[in-house]
Amino acid sequence: MFEELRQKGINFPLLTEQIADQIYQFILQRQLAAGGKIPNEFELAQLFHVGRGTVREAIKLLIARNILEIRRGKGTFVCEKPGMVDDPFGFAYTENKLQLVADLVTIRYILEPEISSLAALSASEDEISEMKKIQLIIEELAQNGKDYSNEDIAFHTILAKSSRNMVMPNLIPVIHYGIDLYNHSLKKYETLKALSIHNDIIKAIEARNPDTAKQAMQNHLEFNKTNVKTLLAST
Amino acid sequence: MFEELRQKGINFPLLTEQIADQIYQFILQRQLAAGGKIPNEFELAQLFHVGRGTVREAIKLLIARNILEIRRGKGTFVCEKPGMVDDPFGFAYTENKLQLVADLVTIRYILEPEISSLAALSASEDEISEMKKIQLIIEELAQNGKDYSNEDIAFHTILAKSSRNMVMPNLIPVIHYGIDLYNHSLKKYETLKALSIHNDIIKAIEARNPDTAKQAMQNHLEFNKTNVKTLLAST
Repeated sequence: MFEELRQKGINFPLLTEQIADQIYQFILQRQLAAGGKIPNEFELAQLFHVGRGTVREAIKLLIARNILEIRRGKGTFVCEKPGMVDDPFGFAYTENKLQLVADLVTIRYILEPEISSLAALSASEDEISEMKKIQLIIEELAQNGKDYSNEDIAFHTILAKSSRNMVMPNLIPVIHYGIDLYNHSLKKYETLKALSIHNDIIKAIEARNPDTAKQAMQNHLEFNKTNVKTLLAST
Repeated sequence: MFEELRQKGINFPLLTEQIADQIYQFILQRQLAAGGKIPNEFELAQLFHVGRGTVREAIKLLIARNILEIRRGKGTFVCEKPGMVDDPFGFAYTENKLQLVADLVTIRYILEPEISSLAALSASEDEISEMKKIQLIIEELAQNGKDYSNEDIAFHTILAKSSRNMVMPNLIPVIHYGIDLYNHSLKKYETLKALSIHNDIIKAIEARNPDTAKQAMQNHLEFNKTNVKTLLAST
């Protein structure tokens, strides 16, 4: 993976890069799972026939790439979500943020009704309880005019998890994160009524009714779509 | 962004991190677009009241994060897809790769028929020509028993671009990349017939018929779904 960086003109000491790459390959080949512990500095230095200083520098590079993390006093571990970054698609750098939000809402409209439908088939009782709990918090925050963005993302992420599709819980927060970049503008259009449809979604999942769950999510997102249209028209 | 790393126990010199963070904020605040040039080392050193060595180290950190790139003899630029990494969701670290592939195929099945439908409304003549060209190459490679994975991803990425949704062209290659992790197993089930449906998709887009384009993509993916089921059943 560092070959590519080198072509871009990056100039880390070659040995550091090579060892970082070897540690990376070592993790992949051993199928070290997320959260798995890697050998210590001394062992890695022996394994790759380099000094401990080089291993230390290589580990820093892998930490910067969200692949490894140091847990103080415990050792060096593969991250829980290795390689995953907060803004993997670089939404923060998009010039036309309004169009970005509109396009992300379109993607929510494509993905989330299907997620809701799958959740009706697969959600555990615990997950349904968790949805209910978060929804109560969201409603209280919204009624008091407070920011409920994080709780809203949490709600939709639990839904994504309960779909039992292992990629959805990574994808959904990223999409919501992008929408939140412009949230201050969307917020004023959001209504308690739109939020209350969360309850319809939960009910349909509890009743194990995928079609109703899908339809409820479509109704919920219909508000968002209208809001984005209003927003795009107003600029 | 480095505060988080610090909490994880990362140990870059504090000043390097701070300056990297300031350069990062500088890019965001000036809304420097993807591909934009940032001030040179000397100017940044003056701006942030630090030595050029510190600026150089900070720039290395930002390069490692795919935010900046050096173009030899030209200067330092914001990456075309800043912050975007090859495997943003860390698919390579997933233990159950077979389930990952099945779940990614499910996501393709949800997203790509809609993309195809949008492409029928928005694809430019140039994009349609490009699809045709790539499809000819794919067919030739497949007929000769050669690997056409990259060309296949290119085909679906052009489709994603021509949907005019700015997120889809980032999302689709990432999903295909994940599927390719297990491609050697899926390949043997893939048939020339499945690939030939690419032509139906192109025809429907050319005829500006969103419903037919959507249906053609569903037909195309139906093969994939069946293949994955066969694969999951065989293990």
